[in-house]
Amino acid sequence: MRLASYNLRGRPGFGAVVGDGIVDLRARLGRFATLLDVFRAQALDEASEATAGVRPELPLAEVELLPPLMAPEKILCVGINYADRGRDYNMSERPEYPSLFYRAPNSLVGHGQNLIRPKISEQLDYEGEIALVIGRECKHVAKEQALAMIAGLTLCNDGSIRDWLRHGRFNVTQGKNFDASGGIGPWIDTDADPAKPLRLLVRKNGEVTQDDTTANMIRSFADLIAYITTFMTLKPGDVVSTGTPVKKGPKTDPPVWLKPGDTIEVECPDIGVLRNSVAAEE
Amino acid sequence: MRLASYNLRGRPGFGAVVGDGIVDLRARLGRFATLLDVFRAQALDEASEATAGVRPELPLAEVELLPPLMAPEKILCVGINYADRGRDYNMSERPEYPSLFYRAPNSLVGHGQNLIRPKISEQLDYEGEIALVIGRECKHVAKEQALAMIAGLTLCNDGSIRDWLRHGRFNVTQGKNFDASGGIGPWIDTDADPAKPLRLLVRKNGEVTQDDTTANMIRSFADLIAYITTFMTLKPGDVVSTGTPVKKGPKTDPPVWLKPGDTIEVECPDIGVLRNSVAAEE
Repeated sequence: MRLASYNLRGRPGFGAVVGDGIVDLRARLGRFATLLDVFRAQALDEASEATAGVRPELPLAEVELLPPLMAPEKILCVGINYADRGRDYNMSERPEYPSLFYRAPNSLVGHGQNLIRPKISEQLDYEGEIALVIGRECKHVAKEQALAMIAGLTLCNDGSIRDWLRHGRFNVTQGKNFDASGGIGPWIDTDADPAKPLRLLVRKNGEVTQDDTTANMIRSFADLIAYITTFMTLKPGDVVSTGTPVKKGPKTDPPVWLKPGDTIEVECPDIGVLRNSVAAEE
Repeated sequence: MRLASYNLRGRPGFGAVVGDGIVDLRARLGRFATLLDVFRAQALDEASEATAGVRPELPLAEVELLPPLMAPEKILCVGINYADRGRDYNMSERPEYPSLFYRAPNSLVGHGQNLIRPKISEQLDYEGEIALVIGRECKHVAKEQALAMIAGLTLCNDGSIRDWLRHGRFNVTQGKNFDASGGIGPWIDTDADPAKPLRLLVRKNGEVTQDDTTANMIRSFADLIAYITTFMTLKPGDVVSTGTPVKKGPKTDPPVWLKPGDTIEVECPDIGVLRNSVAAEE
């Protein structure tokens, strides 16, 4: 099942994407106002039953997709989690622990919505990632049980404003939290198997710039959930974006940042494609 | 007006604290389920009208206070924001920009609830702070307009698990996000004046260990709101905790951490006292 949130002629809704159509679950599951409510009620089975055998009534092309979960309690992101990525930060050794930071909901747009290059900086950069959507409230989860906490997978463009990442000596918060500097979606896929290696591809203006597999992650999805729940309760609808692979090709000097008109696609064949173009802040 | 959230015999409510009683606003403002809903609807005037001339019906001593806002969209904290505090981090100069990090709602308990020292580390530490509660959705706020975005002030114990602060090379997320490692409350004071210097006192087991004034902040409340809204939209109910002063007295080696049974009080005479004791994780 592929669960999406959207605006249809200015009205918010959510549903299941089937082929190039949508089954309207907002109408069918009347007690839930948002897809996040469905996750919080752990009612994915209900969503699945409401979708079974139904012919989609809305053309996917007619809706404006939104972030699948509009305001999850937590959006956690993992830094430096693919082999060789540490070299980008002059780290010679595998870090002892994962690096974690937070993104606010407003920092992420939905599939097809524009990433915004702010007026204050030209250094908008992209990072393709696979993100976990948590299905159960959990704490102190053993690695062996961790994958059962995942309700679905989605794609994230964990975009940055590079020169603002180093404003704080100890934190990247600012550079990762510009409004509309990243994307998430297009939907949450509840069938993609988090236990198997997943290919992750990123294209900038059609050219492949990242291409790796989750088999090369330093910490697996299960490692991350076990580590995070050592200290923090995860809740249904929480999102954990699991880090980005190194970019292909030689580094350019000066670096090339995203410009208005550029398009970034983040793809995992098991999940879908998250596509966003860049616009300038007005 | 002092707005609080609480449990009364296991049922959640919210109200206005008047002397040692509470005016039940959940009952009087039927369309709001939580105090956060009141902030999001910018209905503080309604709360104020519902309170005027009313005799409080609940004894304050009979309720269990909770964090005033149970799940704000964002809880942002500012690192190193009082004069001399940079010395604790071997920083000789005033940092060029504020350091910002995030706390999850579960990391903060309400007034009177226990801080939890986790099994995995003994290094529970405290930091008394004044926190802003945002009253209006805002972006690109000029410093001169910034104080008008504040709906009220509260107190925060921005507690840490010190050895987990350095797990990530670039972020303090883990050490600031242990469940129940900090506190917030006892209430949101909407009359305290953010434009005037406010005294901030912290007592550990009755002994004053922090004592400073917001006049010594490196960045004022207005500076912080102007800076944050350069990149991020702030929303009603968002919390910004504004940093902690240096601790008094010589540093001990090894440092002394909080132990089960210790009590921390964070006080601002204009706001109130936030008191929490420490218990061990079970």
